Amino acid sequence: MQRQIFTEEHDAFRETVRAFLAKEVLPYYEQWEQDGIVSRDAWLAAGRAGLLGLAVPEEYGGGGSTDFRYSAVLAEEFTRAGAPGLAIGLHNDIIGPYLTGLATDEQKRRWLPGFCSGETITAIAMTEPGAGSDLQAIRTTAEDKGDHWLLNGSKTFISNGILADLVIVVAKTTPDGGAKGLSLIVVERGAEGFERGRNLDKIGQKSQDTAELFFNDVRVPKENLLGELDGAFIHLMTNLAQERMGIAVAAIAAAEHLLEITTQYVKEREAFGRPLAKLQHIRFEIAEMATECAVTRAFLDRCIIDHSDGTLDAVHASMAKWWATELQKRTADRCLQLHGGYGYMSEYRVAKAFTDGRIQTIYGGTTEIMKEIIGRSLLA
Amino acid sequence: MQRQIFTEEHDAFRETVRAFLAKEVLPYYEQWEQDGIVSRDAWLAAGRAGLLGLAVPEEYGGGGSTDFRYSAVLAEEFTRAGAPGLAIGLHNDIIGPYLTGLATDEQKRRWLPGFCSGETITAIAMTEPGAGSDLQAIRTTAEDKGDHWLLNGSKTFISNGILADLVIVVAKTTPDGGAKGLSLIVVERGAEGFERGRNLDKIGQKSQDTAELFFNDVRVPKENLLGELDGAFIHLMTNLAQERMGIAVAAIAAAEHLLEITTQYVKEREAFGRPLAKLQHIRFEIAEMATECAVTRAFLDRCIIDHSDGTLDAVHASMAKWWATELQKRTADRCLQLHGGYGYMSEYRVAKAFTDGRIQTIYGGTTEIMKEIIGRSLLA
Amino acid sequence: MQRQIFTEEHDAFRETVRAFLAKEVLPYYEQWEQDGIVSRDAWLAAGRAGLLGLAVPEEYGGGGSTDFRYSAVLAEEFTRAGAPGLAIGLHNDIIGPYLTGLATDEQKRRWLPGFCSGETITAIAMTEPGAGSDLQAIRTTAEDKGDHWLLNGSKTFISNGILADLVIVVAKTTPDGGAKGLSLIVVERGAEGFERGRNLDKIGQKSQDTAELFFNDVRVPKENLLGELDGAFIHLMTNLAQERMGIAVAAIAAAEHLLEITTQYVKEREAFGRPLAKLQHIRFEIAEMATECAVTRAFLDRCIIDHSDGTLDAVHASMAKWWATELQKRTADRCLQLHGGYGYMSEYRVAKAFTDGRIQTIYGGTTEIMKEIIGRSLLA
Amino acid sequence: MQRQIFTEEHDAFRETVRAFLAKEVLPYYEQWEQDGIVSRDAWLAAGRAGLLGLAVPEEYGGGGSTDFRYSAVLAEEFTRAGAPGLAIGLHNDIIGPYLTGLATDEQKRRWLPGFCSGETITAIAMTEPGAGSDLQAIRTTAEDKGDHWLLNGSKTFISNGILADLVIVVAKTTPDGGAKGLSLIVVERGAEGFERGRNLDKIGQKSQDTAELFFNDVRVPKENLLGELDGAFIHLMTNLAQERMGIAVAAIAAAEHLLEITTQYVKEREAFGRPLAKLQHIRFEIAEMATECAVTRAFLDRCIIDHSDGTLDAVHASMAKWWATELQKRTADRCLQLHGGYGYMSEYRVAKAFTDGRIQTIYGGTTEIMKEIIGRSLLA
Ligand SMILES: Cc1cc2nc3c(=O)[nH]c(=O)nc-3n(C[C@H](O)[C@H](O)[C@H](O)COP(=O)(O)OP(=O)(O)OC[C@H]3O[C@@H](n4cnc5c(N)ncnc54)[C@H](O)[C@@H]3O)c2cc1C
Ligand SMILES: Cc1cc2nc3c(=O)[nH]c(=O)nc-3n(C[C@H](O)[C@H](O)[C@H](O)COP(=O)(O)OP(=O)(O)OC[C@H]3O[C@@H](n4cnc5c(N)ncnc54)[C@H](O)[C@@H]3O)c2cc1C
Ligand SMILES: Cc1cc2nc3c(=O)[nH]c(=O)nc-3n(C[C@H](O)[C@H](O)[C@H](O)COP(=O)(O)OP(=O)(O)OC[C@H]3O[C@@H](n4cnc5c(N)ncnc54)[C@H](O)[C@@H]3O)c2cc1C
Ligand SMILES: Cc1cc2nc3c(=O)[nH]c(=O)nc-3n(C[C@H](O)[C@H](O)[C@H](O)COP(=O)(O)OP(=O)(O)OC[C@H]3O[C@@H](n4cnc5c(N)ncnc54)[C@H](O)[C@@H]3O)c2cc1C
Repeated sequence: MQRQIFTEEHDAFRETVRAFLAKEVLPYYEQWEQDGIVSRDAWLAAGRAGLLGLAVPEEYGGGGSTDFRYSAVLAEEFTRAGAPGLAIGLHNDIIGPYLTGLATDEQKRRWLPGFCSGETITAIAMTEPGAGSDLQAIRTTAEDKGDHWLLNGSKTFISNGILADLVIVVAKTTPDGGAKGLSLIVVERGAEGFERGRNLDKIGQKSQDTAELFFNDVRVPKENLLGELDGAFIHLMTNLAQERMGIAVAAIAAAEHLLEITTQYVKEREAFGRPLAKLQHIRFEIAEMATECAVTRAFLDRCIIDHSDGTLDAVHASMAKWWATELQKRTADRCLQLHGGYGYMSEYRVAKAFTDGRIQTIYGGTTEIMKEIIGRSLLA
Repeated sequence: MQRQIFTEEHDAFRETVRAFLAKEVLPYYEQWEQDGIVSRDAWLAAGRAGLLGLAVPEEYGGGGSTDFRYSAVLAEEFTRAGAPGLAIGLHNDIIGPYLTGLATDEQKRRWLPGFCSGETITAIAMTEPGAGSDLQAIRTTAEDKGDHWLLNGSKTFISNGILADLVIVVAKTTPDGGAKGLSLIVVERGAEGFERGRNLDKIGQKSQDTAELFFNDVRVPKENLLGELDGAFIHLMTNLAQERMGIAVAAIAAAEHLLEITTQYVKEREAFGRPLAKLQHIRFEIAEMATECAVTRAFLDRCIIDHSDGTLDAVHASMAKWWATELQKRTADRCLQLHGGYGYMSEYRVAKAFTDGRIQTIYGGTTEIMKEIIGRSLLA
Repeated sequence: MQRQIFTEEHDAFRETVRAFLAKEVLPYYEQWEQDGIVSRDAWLAAGRAGLLGLAVPEEYGGGGSTDFRYSAVLAEEFTRAGAPGLAIGLHNDIIGPYLTGLATDEQKRRWLPGFCSGETITAIAMTEPGAGSDLQAIRTTAEDKGDHWLLNGSKTFISNGILADLVIVVAKTTPDGGAKGLSLIVVERGAEGFERGRNLDKIGQKSQDTAELFFNDVRVPKENLLGELDGAFIHLMTNLAQERMGIAVAAIAAAEHLLEITTQYVKEREAFGRPLAKLQHIRFEIAEMATECAVTRAFLDRCIIDHSDGTLDAVHASMAKWWATELQKRTADRCLQLHGGYGYMSEYRVAKAFTDGRIQTIYGGTTEIMKEIIGRSLLA
Repeated sequence: MQRQIFTEEHDAFRETVRAFLAKEVLPYYEQWEQDGIVSRDAWLAAGRAGLLGLAVPEEYGGGGSTDFRYSAVLAEEFTRAGAPGLAIGLHNDIIGPYLTGLATDEQKRRWLPGFCSGETITAIAMTEPGAGSDLQAIRTTAEDKGDHWLLNGSKTFISNGILADLVIVVAKTTPDGGAKGLSLIVVERGAEGFERGRNLDKIGQKSQDTAELFFNDVRVPKENLLGELDGAFIHLMTNLAQERMGIAVAAIAAAEHLLEITTQYVKEREAFGRPLAKLQHIRFEIAEMATECAVTRAFLDRCIIDHSDGTLDAVHASMAKWWATELQKRTADRCLQLHGGYGYMSEYRVAKAFTDGRIQTIYGGTTEIMKEIIGRSLLA
């Protein structure tokens, strides 16, 4: 079933991304995995290749288009390349909109050029040791000290946590305000009292730096408030659909790619005198995964279009997120199994895909939280 | 997510179908279930309402349009009404194409007007006691006796078996020809030696007459050969995509309808002092089913369009068939459970849907056969 | 794997049950299904055969043994025979313990002889239109009128509802007492104002009379209070483990029987030139079901022994209930599918087993309620 | 549900194993994981602690008991400790029986003392790059050169591959003999031409050395033939039940342990103002896993007893293997999810258990091969 959502421009962009991956990512990827972090050079190269800030207005060095299909292409190609470490999707699709959507002109001028050039790597820090799914439990505080915010608290599991030059921190600005007492405060590299904790040791996504961040009496300039005072919750809600779509798009691409690899594998691998593909169980496995991929692809492509058009609602974004990531997880598990012992070897793509992919049903809103959102909405 | 495939014409047709159901089907449905068969009057009424032969050229009294969306509308509305007994889909989408596609002009003149008026109810008889999934095992024979075919054998599980005035029988015309020795022979009501067996007692679809047919030295005119001599297998293959789409379209409509009913039910039914909908497990059930329906709907609507355009291949039709019918089955089971004891009472829609729907993964090519087709094609 | 829990006595009892089924049940079963109710004669015959009141003291005509293995044998054989309609298990294992455990000597003398002879068929009426899983929502009231209880309310889904001569009714005796305001009141056939409603039309278990009961100003003698005043909830809780075990034991027996039938079927049924059993998918289906049955059997036999020893707790009884019934449901669905079109025909055992069995995850405490009980206990 | 299979002796042995783990394994485990291999000292310590050669006759320094419950205790404790790297189970339960069962007295004297003291670490090498599930495809050859075997070929995925001092190699001794042309040849450390390849990089079980082995014109003494010439296939089949039981026993222990950890976690972790355990979905997850563990435990304990008694057949050993390992896999996945982001952090037990455990459905005979064995046997 031919996909119908892309134009020639998107195809051309896909070529650009592939070339970038081949030249700037894949040759270094193993090293990054050993280092537990990607090189800053890759970010600069991405900036030069025009991959950063696709939706940022051109005046700040961005691509100037909110057509989400470009993001989809990017996510798809990074996924197919097996290179989730360089977190451009996070930077572009998740953090980007906060800056383009909420920043003042002054802030834009300060932050967006670096954002697009790759000089300013970004992160968003919501999660805390005691607050993950439940953002209202956030305890990091930003006290209004007249001419600055005094930031105290700690964050964990922050993607790009070590590399980030600019971190959007969700902090309590009105102590008893609950969800309505949270604001977005931008903390920049070098701020006194802002410290990185451990680069966490994960079972997958080894080249992604996921880190703890500590804020001890960090003085943040008043002009680093992003968006409305006490308005973080609404800002977060507004941008979550896109975060979820970004993850979902990568998830279906991962599943499709795993299927492709594994289809090839079972055609070539022999056992009992003939290719595995000749065994009915294997055939059914492939048929089932192929069906699930095809069905999901139709839905996702529809969501991509709707999201580009601005008509995708929170419920459908949540559906896309949990469904596609659970499919990815299931598919990775099945494909690993179909590779037999080889599936357990790190050098095999399925093995990596299995461990790299396992986080997808958790971050960006867990499967369970997605179901809550959908269920509540349908039963309201 | 708004469906995007229908025009105003389709919507108008939907109204026609609804009116027909309300007037000509629902008031009699319980009676038909008790009788194990629908009334011939309903067929005539369907003819008058323009529901028969949507794709038959207008010169023969048909609708003249091969736009599959009309069939989809019909299947959807019959399904929502919970009235699978009146097998218009079978007549239109499965048998129709054989007649319009293969019949000679003479045959068309003989058969199509009655087909469209409801006077000639049709059936197709492939399955035999010893040949279901494996059509090559068919043992019914049609011997060429010069001026007629001599038909011998028996068929089973034939929908419309009792009512049918015209039966397309798949029979062996070349004894050792295997798949290449089968032909389509049209047997008409009244032919000597053509007898109906039992109207089979099924666990669901009570108003559908599913019957055994016996052929003992039936003399069938030579001009009742449909299509190519020894060409049945290819004719069958050609028309199976549409048969499968018809079933799939009804299946997703059934799942959606069950979800709708059940969503309503859990909002209203109280337990432990509040609506069931307030329980997280219930919410997750609804969220999961809603997601599966939304995802599947996107795929099915794409398939409907592709099929109307003539671009749907056998693999995707098979995917649609097994995926949608398994979804229907799963959904019926879950919705029944969510109704508690009421779900087991025949008067409840979910109970009927559970038993009526269970056949869907079996006829028209079982789930297993669908997976074979898909797997083989992908691994070729 | 040989079962290890039975002695020769149990084996002999099994023979008795089989003989009873062959002589007194199977010849009439189809008729009962058409009637929607079994014959009272069968109950009398069961009494004569010594199948009623296995655990009732011998002085009242019972078997005098609380060894639950006899109940297990009974449930297993009735299940294998495909004859769930004659609800001896309900009578013996569910209602019996209330009478033997809670009745006064006078009550025992009044009720138990008939209970054991089959003259007094019993029922227990907890469920109401608005109170199923949530027994605290019961609205039937029994007002203390000095020399009698005045009973008002209605019950639904009552097994043996039409046949029952003695009904244990759960009613509110203390209006605002919540769970602590319910009592067990025994209502006997003929009581004025006690009326049977419809014999409900179910999708399965056709020969079981499941009915609505209405109580309009029924005057029940004071001496018909069973157990403690306001003590029903505790009485119910005490007896539920046995009810659940009874259902679970039937469930695993059903699954095993379905597997047996289907194993045979796929060895005999041919497609594509060889038995279905030669297809890997079919082999895997059988292997998976056989494993599930073997694993579950080991657990159930352990539970049977523990329950006979009085050491089975509520949590494990709940595990047995939901796990075994869900296995039964799953197995019935798979076996039906493996029978192809025949699986949908009422005359086939798998078809009946599919519809008969579907209620098992619902009555006696739904799967969801079982999980609540287990989860709460483990997370307390 | 109290387990009923252990005596005081087993309990005492369990204490020994725990003490050993605490003293000799856990303090070094992280280091071993970094090294990709355990220390030889640990093996010697295990020997001193009496953990090696439980079933080896006492005259050779072994435990002298074939009571499989000791092996079960060992497997359970190593699993609970999260220390699969030190492959004592492999050594004792898988390789041990070949030596005790097939070795000549001379061989026993040569090999068993070191086997029991920990000086002789063992491995078994069946798998080759082109022969895993399908052992008949083995291409390593052992040519009879009169006074020695000339061994050529390569093996892969060999556990203890780097550490092993004694390797049982499955090799072709009769070129065209198919399954009947394979023999067991013992290759010892230091043999010329016997080389270790890479210590393979796996996604889990990091401290287990799994390696490639190469044999280039290795001259193996004639007296190193183990068992019958050309009899390897039967020897392998005979010992596989025990291998499978060993894996199954570890698998259920892993699942139970994960459940325990996770039950604790959800009781402590708070979200939305209360412990996760208060959420119904979480409760159901725990209830479902607890049920699966309880059901499986009953089956496994029965298998352990049967295996100790010598009555466990290949079918039930295969059931135990696939069922328990699939349960472990499923449970690890669910428990990881329930830990949210923490589940993805290597320092968390669930994260390790997830990657360590993933191999279990593959080695020792894949899930698919187990189903083949069961299905074939039941459908013969
Ligand atoms: C690799 C990685 C990268 C990450 N990157 C970032 C980042 O860049 N920025 C950032 O802010 N955060 C990041 N996170 C954090 C991530 O968003 C959280 O881990 C996630 O939201 C879950 O929160 P938690 O870990 O606290 O789990 P919890 O919220 O403690 O959840 C534990 C379990 O309980 C379930 N649960 C919770 N609430 C409910 C409910 N109401 N009903 C049913 N089940 C429920 C969850 O689904 C989960 O299964 C990252 C995490 C990882 C592992
Ligand atoms: C209500 C009803 C209406 C019907 N209407 C019609 C009709 O109008 N006209 C008509 O001709 N037929 C009709 N049928 C027949 C229907 O098409 C067949 O029942 C169906 O094709 C399956 O064939 P079977 O019953 O012989 O099952 P079998 O072919 O015997 O299959 C038994 C099982 O084996 C599985 N199986 C078979 N082959 C394979 C394989 N290669 N690999 C894996 N699994 C396999 C099947 O999937 C199934 O689970 C109807 C059936 C029913 C029940
Ligand atoms: C054939 C038949 C025979 C019966 N025989 C008897 C009898 O002899 N005597 C008698 O008293 N009753 C009998 N019953 C009634 C039976 O026990 C109830 O139907 C059953 O307890 C469920 O109650 P309900 O139907 O009111 O469903 P509800 O309680 O309304 O439940 C509806 C759905 O919500 C779910 N649900 C409810 N509470 C929760 C929760 N807290 N968390 C998650 N999910 C929840 C249920 O699991 C179910 O899926 C019978 C029923 C049938 C169908
Ligand atoms: C960590 C680890 C340790 C190991 N330790 C040892 C060791 O000590 N000694 C040793 O000899 N080996 C060892 N092995 C090898 C292991 O036993 C094999 O990997 C396993 O038997 C599978 O073989 P394979 O990898 O060649 O997979 P394949 O045989 O190629 O199988 C690939 C896939 O096809 C499936 N398949 C194969 N045949 C069929 C069939 N007939 N029907 C359906 N599906 C089928 C498999 O189930 C699997 O999903 C180890 C492997 C690992 C990963």
